[in-house]
Amino acid sequence: MKIFTLAAAAATLLTLAVPASAQFAKPEDAIKYRQSALFVMGQHFGRVGAMATGRAPFDAKVAADNAEVIASMAKLPWVAFGPGTDKGAVNKANPEVWSEQAKFKEAGEKLIAESTKLAAAAKTGNLDTVKTAFNATAASCKACHDVYRAR
Amino acid sequence: MKIFTLAAAAATLLTLAVPASAQFAKPEDAIKYRQSALFVMGQHFGRVGAMATGRAPFDAKVAADNAEVIASMAKLPWVAFGPGTDKGAVNKANPEVWSEQAKFKEAGEKLIAESTKLAAAAKTGNLDTVKTAFNATAASCKACHDVYRAR
Repeated sequence: MKIFTLAAAAATLLTLAVPASAQFAKPEDAIKYRQSALFVMGQHFGRVGAMATGRAPFDAKVAADNAEVIASMAKLPWVAFGPGTDKGAVNKANPEVWSEQAKFKEAGEKLIAESTKLAAAAKTGNLDTVKTAFNATAASCKACHDVYRAR
Repeated sequence: MKIFTLAAAAATLLTLAVPASAQFAKPEDAIKYRQSALFVMGQHFGRVGAMATGRAPFDAKVAADNAEVIASMAKLPWVAFGPGTDKGAVNKANPEVWSEQAKFKEAGEKLIAESTKLAAAAKTGNLDTVKTAFNATAASCKACHDVYRAR
């Protein structure tokens, strides 16, 4: 039983150890993928932001629909920052993405957590709740961009 | 009651009548958005395709996870083909996207339907079921590309 468990754990580790870039045919695909996912997310984020900051009238349904997409998209980009994907196409990722992998991963997880909360907040239909969650999510975007994205 | 219903229906129609492009600050954003969403979807579709065609070993969990993303992404691009988004950035959309709006919309809905079935198929963990659903989804991609995407 113990041996089986160890073997299973080893198998899991092996799976996790496969470089994320192996999911992409070439580094430029990984770069385009993460840029695409972040762009799509950004468009939906902008729509919630327009409502959260009063530049657009609040529509609970629209906010909820957009926040749902944001939370889904937030999970996608990170696997595309695998080893060897620092070049291959024009991109703004700083070298720290790869030299501070644990901290970068944490930053991605922070966005996932905050956007999940934003989706939940948007479902309440309460603008103040949305504002608070939007600001927290925006702060997680900024914190990561400040360190890991070139200006 | 009847008046209320009619008013509600009229309000819904008004909402639907807002041009989809109004969601985007400029036509190039709409173009980049739809290209991004389709690219992200394509990457995940390729992973299911590799398993469906025997180029990669079948992993039910990986197939299900990817198919889930495909089904979510499939819903996104269509709103970004609004009026006035035929130019503003390099893109491969044929003029028929706008001259045959009803048929184009149908093609998009076909992809949404087939990819939803693919996600359900992938959840069964049965490779043959995945293959059948993958082929149907791929056929919906091709049917749309043949008419609406320039070579």
